[in-house]
This record gives sequence, C-alpha cells and structure tokens, in this order.
Amino acid sequence: MNGAQALMKTLVDAGIEVCFSNPGTSEMHFVAALDDEPKMRAVLALFEGVATGAADGYARMADKPAATLLHLGCGLGNGLANLHNARKGKVPVVNIVGDHATVHVKYDAQLQSDIETVARNVSPGFVRTSQSTAELCKDAVEAITTARGLPGQVATLILPADVSWGEGGIPCAVPAQAESPAADDGAIQSVLDAIRSGKKTALLLGGRALREPALIAAAKIAAATGVKLLAETFPTRMERGQGLPPVERIAYLAELASVQLAEIDNLILVDSKAPVSFFAYPGKKSYLVPDDCTVYTLSRPDQDARTSLAKLADALGADKAQPEIQQLQRPSAPRGRLTAPKVCKAVGHYLPENAIIIDEAITSGLMLNAMTAAAPRHDMITLTGGAIGQGLPNAVGAAIACPERPVIALIGDGTAMYTIQALWTMAREQLNVTSIIFNNASYSVLNIELERVGAEEAGAKAKSQLDLNWPVLNFAQLAQGMGVHGVRVDTAEAFNHALEYALSHPGPHLIEAMVPESLSGLKRKILPWVLRSLPSLPASVTRTLKNRIAP
Amino acid sequence: MNGAQALMKTLVDAGIEVCFSNPGTSEMHFVAALDDEPKMRAVLALFEGVATGAADGYARMADKPAATLLHLGCGLGNGLANLHNARKGKVPVVNIVGDHATVHVKYDAQLQSDIETVARNVSPGFVRTSQSTAELCKDAVEAITTARGLPGQVATLILPADVSWGEGGIPCAVPAQAESPAADDGAIQSVLDAIRSGKKTALLLGGRALREPALIAAAKIAAATGVKLLAETFPTRMERGQGLPPVERIAYLAELASVQLAEIDNLILVDSKAPVSFFAYPGKKSYLVPDDCTVYTLSRPDQDARTSLAKLADALGADKAQPEIQQLQRPSAPRGRLTAPKVCKAVGHYLPENAIIIDEAITSGLMLNAMTAAAPRHDMITLTGGAIGQGLPNAVGAAIACPERPVIALIGDGTAMYTIQALWTMAREQLNVTSIIFNNASYSVLNIELERVGAEEAGAKAKSQLDLNWPVLNFAQLAQGMGVHGVRVDTAEAFNHALEYALSHPGPHLIEAMVPESLSGLKRKILPWVLRSLPSLPASVTRTLKNRIAP
Repeated sequence: MNGAQALMKTLVDAGIEVCFSNPGTSEMHFVAALDDEPKMRAVLALFEGVATGAADGYARMADKPAATLLHLGCGLGNGLANLHNARKGKVPVVNIVGDHATVHVKYDAQLQSDIETVARNVSPGFVRTSQSTAELCKDAVEAITTARGLPGQVATLILPADVSWGEGGIPCAVPAQAESPAADDGAIQSVLDAIRSGKKTALLLGGRALREPALIAAAKIAAATGVKLLAETFPTRMERGQGLPPVERIAYLAELASVQLAEIDNLILVDSKAPVSFFAYPGKKSYLVPDDCTVYTLSRPDQDARTSLAKLADALGADKAQPEIQQLQRPSAPRGRLTAPKVCKAVGHYLPENAIIIDEAITSGLMLNAMTAAAPRHDMITLTGGAIGQGLPNAVGAAIACPERPVIALIGDGTAMYTIQALWTMAREQLNVTSIIFNNASYSVLNIELERVGAEEAGAKAKSQLDLNWPVLNFAQLAQGMGVHGVRVDTAEAFNHALEYALSHPGPHLIEAMVPESLSGLKRKILPWVLRSLPSLPASVTRTLKNRIAP
Repeated sequence: MNGAQALMKTLVDAGIEVCFSNPGTSEMHFVAALDDEPKMRAVLALFEGVATGAADGYARMADKPAATLLHLGCGLGNGLANLHNARKGKVPVVNIVGDHATVHVKYDAQLQSDIETVARNVSPGFVRTSQSTAELCKDAVEAITTARGLPGQVATLILPADVSWGEGGIPCAVPAQAESPAADDGAIQSVLDAIRSGKKTALLLGGRALREPALIAAAKIAAATGVKLLAETFPTRMERGQGLPPVERIAYLAELASVQLAEIDNLILVDSKAPVSFFAYPGKKSYLVPDDCTVYTLSRPDQDARTSLAKLADALGADKAQPEIQQLQRPSAPRGRLTAPKVCKAVGHYLPENAIIIDEAITSGLMLNAMTAAAPRHDMITLTGGAIGQGLPNAVGAAIACPERPVIALIGDGTAMYTIQALWTMAREQLNVTSIIFNNASYSVLNIELERVGAEEAGAKAKSQLDLNWPVLNFAQLAQGMGVHGVRVDTAEAFNHALEYALSHPGPHLIEAMVPESLSGLKRKILPWVLRSLPSLPASVTRTLKNRIAP
C-alpha cells in the first residue's frame, strides 16, 4: 500500500468522505488512490478557490470536515481566501497540499516555493510537511484531530509526491472526538449576576450558539428575564425561520451596529466576540461596544455553547419558560420593475421548506434578513472572513453535504466574479443550487465605503475603479457557458417565474437579477425600509438611526 | 498631502505609470489619489490573479515595473500564483497590499490576517508594512529599488489604511538604477577554455540573454566556434523570428530534454540555470544535465547578459563573425478538420509583424515553436513559474505596455479557467488581444503526467479528475458574457477566417478552437511531428528519442 492509498483509507475511516480537488502532477498518486476507496467522493473544481470554498460550505452543513486537494504553493495561494473565510468561521477543513518529491526540492524547479509560509496564514494550529510514507498517516491523524476539534480549524497537511507514491503506508485510526466542556460555574455566576442586575442586557450569540437547541435555550432565558437576543454580524451557520426564536443580527454598517448596541448595559458573549467595525474609518471608533457597557463571556469558542446556555437557563430557573417562537410569515410576491429588495421579497415569498440560504449580497441583500425572518425553517450561511468569492463555492459544498435540501445563493455581481468557476462544478455534479446574481454593474459597497472613509470628493478615475458598468457582465451567458441553466430578468414577475421554475426543476439554475440601483436610491429607499422593518427598536433608537443614516 | 497622494507621486516620478488594481475599502484613499496624478493609469481587474498577472506581463514588455493594488491578505492570496510566476521569471513588480489601519489590527476584524507571512512566499527580497505616513515614501523607494534591480523581483509594500489617509506624506525620488556588471575575467577565461577544448559545447541562454543584442552576440559565437545555442524551457520573454538567430528551446518533457542534452560535454549558463525536470518522477533523475557534462556559468541573473556575451565574443575574436540569421518562412494555411497543430500552423501562417505571443497551451501548443520559428519578428512570453492561469492576464499587461503591437495568447482550456476574468478587462480597456483557447475538454497534460508518474493503471474516478468533458465549456459564450467578441470553430478554414478577422479588427477577440485530441492521438500524431521538426538533432539522438517517446 503506498502513502496515498493509506492516507485515503485514514481519511475515509475518520468519516472524511468528500475531497474537493484541483490536482496537478504532484497529486497524481492521491488521485489514482481514489479508485481504491469507494466511500471517497472526489469533486473537481476548475479553480482552487472553488475547492476550498466548497470544503468550507460542506463542513458548515455536514458538521464534519471535507478534504481539499491542492497543487503546491500556488494552488494553496489560489485557495487561500476561502480558507481564510473558513478559519474566521471556525470551520474544520483538512487541507491537503501536494508538494514536489522531497528529493526534488533542492533543484528549485518552476513550481518550487515555500508552501508552509503561505499555509501559516490560514492554518495557525497545524501545518506540517509529511516527511515519510511510514509517518504520513500519523501526521494525517493530527491534522484531522486539529481540524475537527472545537473550535474547528483549517489544518494543512503538505504531501510530497514521493511520500505519496512510496510503499509502506500504514493507515491509522483517528481517536473519537473529546466532548467540549460547558461554561464553568464562575462564568455562569457572573452572567447570572449581570442578568439579575436589572440593567439592559443582551446575549450576543455566535458560532454554535446559532443552532436550534442553543437558540431555544437562549429564547427561554429571554422569555424569563427580558434579555435581548442578538446574533453576530456574519454567522458561520444560523438556523432561522418558522419554529425558531427571532434573533436580531448586528448590522455590517458600524453606524447601524452602534445604534443596535446603544442602550445595552451588559453584553454577554456566547461563542462570539465583542463587536468591532469591519474596517477602521478616520475619526471613528473600531470597537463598537458602548463605553459604559460591560462585556461578559458565557462560553468561548472552545466550549460547548448549547450546554452552557442550558446550564445558564437552569441556573436562572428559565428552563420551563415559554420561548417566543416565530409563526410562519411570508412577504407577498413582488410586482413591477425589479429592485434588489424585491428579489429578497420574492425569496421570502417562495422559500421552500428546509432550504439553505447563502448570503453574499453585501448591499443588494440588505433586506434578505427581514424578508426571510419568519419564512419556513432554513439555514443561513454568511461571509465570515470578509473575503468575497465565498458564496458560490459554499453553495457547491452545502449542496453536496445536503443533497436533499434546496440551496439558494444570493450573490453580488462583483463578488460572483471571484469564483465564477463554481458554476461548472454545479453543472458537473448536477447540484440543486439556485444562484441569484444581483447585477447592479457596480462594486456598490465600495461606493458607500468611499464616502465612509472620507474620500467622497473622489474624481472620475477613482469612481471608475468601483464601476462594473462597461462592459456590463452577462451572468446568464456565463452560466450557459459553464453548462448551467441561466436566465436574465428585469421585472419582479419574471423573477418570480424564474425562481419558481428553478425551485421546481432539479439541478443548478442561475437567475441574473438586473437591479440598476443607484447609491442615492439605496439611501433613499432601502435604509428607510430597514428602519420600518426593525419595529423592535425603541423609538429613541430609530430616531437616532434616521438622523445618522438617512437624513 | 496624505500618504496615498505622496505614494502616488513617488511611483509616477519613478516611472511607474500603471496600476493593476482590485481594491477594497482599505485602499479607498489610494484609489481617491488616482485623480491627483494624471500620469497614473489604473486598470481594474475583477480578480486579483488578473491584476498580478497583468503586472507581470506589463513588466516583461515594458522593462519596468507596474504597481498592483490588492486588498489585504486574501487579495494577496488570490494574486499569489501570478506573483509566483513573476518571481520565477525575475520580473519586477511593485506589489501594493492595503491593510487595516494600524489602530484596527488589534481587534482581529473579519479580514485580519498575517499578510507578511503570505508575502514572503513571493517577495523574499522585500516585504514591509509601512508604519507611518512620513516614512511611507522612503519604504516605497526601497520597494521600487528592490523590484527593478537585476534580477527583477516582486517587492511587497503593505499599506495600512491610516498610513494612507494620514496627512504629512512626503514624496521621495528614486535613485537611478545602478548598471549591472558584466561577467568577470575569470568567468570569461574558463568559458573560453571550455569552448576551445574542442568538446561539444552549448550556450544555455535564459532571462535577458534572449533579447536581440544578446542573441546576436551568441549567434556570432556560434558561427565562429560551432557551439550550439539552447534556450531555457520557459523564457520570461524571448525575441524570435525573422532576422534573429535560431535557438532551440529545452523541452518541457524531461524525456525530450534529456535527449537534447545527451551529447553536450560543456554546458555554459548565460542568465539561466542548469536544467532540471519540472516534476520528479519515480525512479527518474531530476537533474537533466548528463553525468559527464561540465557546467560553466558565463553570467548570473544579477549580471548583464548582453555585455557578458559581447565580452566573450570579443575574447573569442568572434565579433566579426557572420551570425546565422533566419529568413522569413511561414507554414502554409491549414485545411480540414481542426487540430491543435493546425491552430499553431495557422498562427505561424498569419502572424503579423511585431506581435507578442503568449504561450500557455501546454500540450496543444507543442507545435507552436516550430510553426513560428522563422515567422515575422515577435516576442514570446511563457509560463515561467508553472502556475497556470498566467496567459490571459499576461496578455492584458503586454497589450497595455505595447498598445501598438498585436497580442496573441494561446491558452489551454483548463488553464484559461483560472483567470478567465481577464477577458472583462480586455473588453473594458479595448485591448488588441486575440485569445485562442484550445478546447480539448481535458486537463490533457495531466493525462500524460498520470502515466509518467507510474499511475497509469488509474481507474474511472481518477481519470474523471482530469476530464473537462461534461459539461463541455463554451468559451465563446464566456467571452460574450464578459463583452469580448467570441467565436467557436472546428475547421481549419473557419479558424483561419476567425484569426484573420481578429487580427484586422481592433479590440479583443476570442477564438475557441475545438480540438478533441485524444492522448493516443497526441502520441501518435504530434510527437512524431516534433521529431520531424527538429532536423538539427543528430540522427543518433533522433533515434533515441523515437524509441523513448513514440514507439
């Protein structure tokens, strides 16, 4: 048995049954070993960022890692952005990077580069170049153990070609995962005191605290004590909709987030971190927690959020409380000229049971949360690391993890182009993914950001760096060029029809939503709509918000 | 003047007048500063690999660096593969990577990652995070000086947002570039002795030794002494064709390269390195120089190849020799069903004066060298670092460096998909680029490599990882979706027509050449053709080659 065959067996025995790959010559023995393991499914991507983003999306939904297969330092480089998103989302990935044979390294051939140095950016917990066929599977066990612990990590195993092709590989068993501890009594007590202080308190739920059992425990605490439930800005995976409690996500725009946090005295972190702004802005604070707010930690990412919340509910005597649960509520179907909010409305209107929503529509998806809050039960996956180009690959992985569930990916036009090659893998694997691309012919968020950083007096050259308006991309054609059924629509009626069609026909679909929304339109129309959609905010806060954002 | 404005002025004053960009929020002040410098041209890319590959292609043709503008560690990751190609090709690039404001770093926001650690992979000579607005331009001077010295390097300047927006920027002048030394007398003498030994000697020309003055000097030496002229396998930029001497490139396949080198006793390196195989193969040597061959170095990459060769010619009394110069010779126009060699033949037949050929068609382009050897004078750019996805971005950069010259990029289908977004930039900038995509629905080279690494018994799952045959990509549609005129052809006549049309109409064109060439077809048809096209090889060598490669 060669190294590659032993590694394949070690992976499969540990439950790693999907490998998202973009191989080259140095990975040919690993590729050849695929046929020795019927349980291993190999999914080919045309670009490494698709493979790594798919591994990320898969693990978010399967709750176990997939493997990747990348080609030396350059393949890893191409896959880095989506591994970054996985790292920030605490998602387990077993990242396998082929390397030159150990005896070949000294010749500094064309593809030679320092792979480990690149890998450290995304794999601080485990980077290793396996040195011998005999030791390979022991290295793999450490990689797998590191990856799937709590918090999940990206573990990078570098696999030299001769370690892979050498004979004498020995498959290894991976020990069962240790149970993660709950919050200790000291943490429970201080949180208890904070909640009982009578001050305005919020639980900020993140990571694993956004899954059903944790959400129900949190909602019981809210029902018993009046604490507010907040969710982190970019959840790795959030269970939402009918039958689950309402939870308000912290906004991406720091101006909005500050308002959401303005009246909180005690902020209790549950598998989350204290909110900071996405970027720094001249003269503005990065740390968004108000000066007079005290931050507590109920449970850290290496602790079990669900049992921690259950323990807290128990200590509060809240375990018998009736949690607020959302009843099914859908917006009506939109009509007339298509706009970005109407697309979100249609998604809320038509959302099937048990869907997976991928949200990577930074400005155009502003209404998505409101429009789907009480839609049929679903999961939502968001851009955890801010490296755009996550959504389409995530959709590939999510659809492979959950073949029976419809996946709907809402993606901005600029964003879609980073990893557009994902469409081909959707076609090849005939995945049930409906990709909705908002074509507003602009890096719309950057037009907002240009103003926010104080560079609003920018001239024509600067503004042209944010425009995608010539030539206007045609995503329906791009989809067809990769074997995906694609349509372009510019009315709400046509969008509704396309969405119904896509959801009722298996395989991948792409709907290109033409939404020529100007920045002034965004400010004039969408932000007030956001304000109207947040009736849970106190009137004083809504007033502040209106003055700050949409005067 | 803020930091960004001062940096912009420092760049322009140093002759850096093009910036290939894919900016985000942290780069908005740099973007805003574009309007302060009329001399700076900003070229937007939809993906960072396009920006870095364009900077690489630009510098190869302009002989001076462009700047890039990338967004934090993830943007750098996306751009890494083509920076690797630039590094291996010794191409100068001033790589500017925006970062969070220095005061924001401690909050570990979504996009926070260790940028320097990634940058070291491609910028061993210069990576620096600028710490203050006042010092920024001094850092830039070091970056520029490092990048454009001999050998050229990728220098990475990391630009925190607050260093960019801070007031008090001071533009700096970049000192004139020092002249690079020629080979010293000791090196000349030992090479002289080797040539005069009467043994079979070859000059292996690489880097700057593949430009006209150096080539002419080498050809004079060849004429006077009978030494053979070889070129490195993947030249950064090679001047070729009518009016220049014939030079035989070392083959990509180690089996072929070994044969080319088999009868050489003395190998003299001129801005090149001793040939090694691209990958290692079980039981095969990586180092391709025969055991009984002695390697000499005339000039290193940090020395001036042209003056070194002139000095050698002088010492040999060869400066008055008549170099062998190629007369114009074109293949006839191909006819009938389209194949990859026929595409190469058509390129040779129609090649306009002064073209730039980008060669990234690894198997399909096998005949390109032979078919264009004595075509009208042109430059050829090749895949220096082996990280595929270089060609289309290189074409963008080359066309911007040389707007009056036609650019013809020959690209494999698998390869094209890594950086297909380059087509949009070609359309936006209306570049005179004809992209020829060989659609054989396969990672064809990997089918060869699978066999070469001894994994030829691979099963169906393994082989499916190398097939792009379902769905078959439609590159003409992909081009149209990005605003580029695209056609798909499957006969030689249609290809000829499309190529003539493309070369006579300004702006970008894409020709999708349907070449369903099977691996057996490749072995049966193309390799024998290669053999027939290498008449300069001694008969004994050709025999060996036939036995090894195409039995």
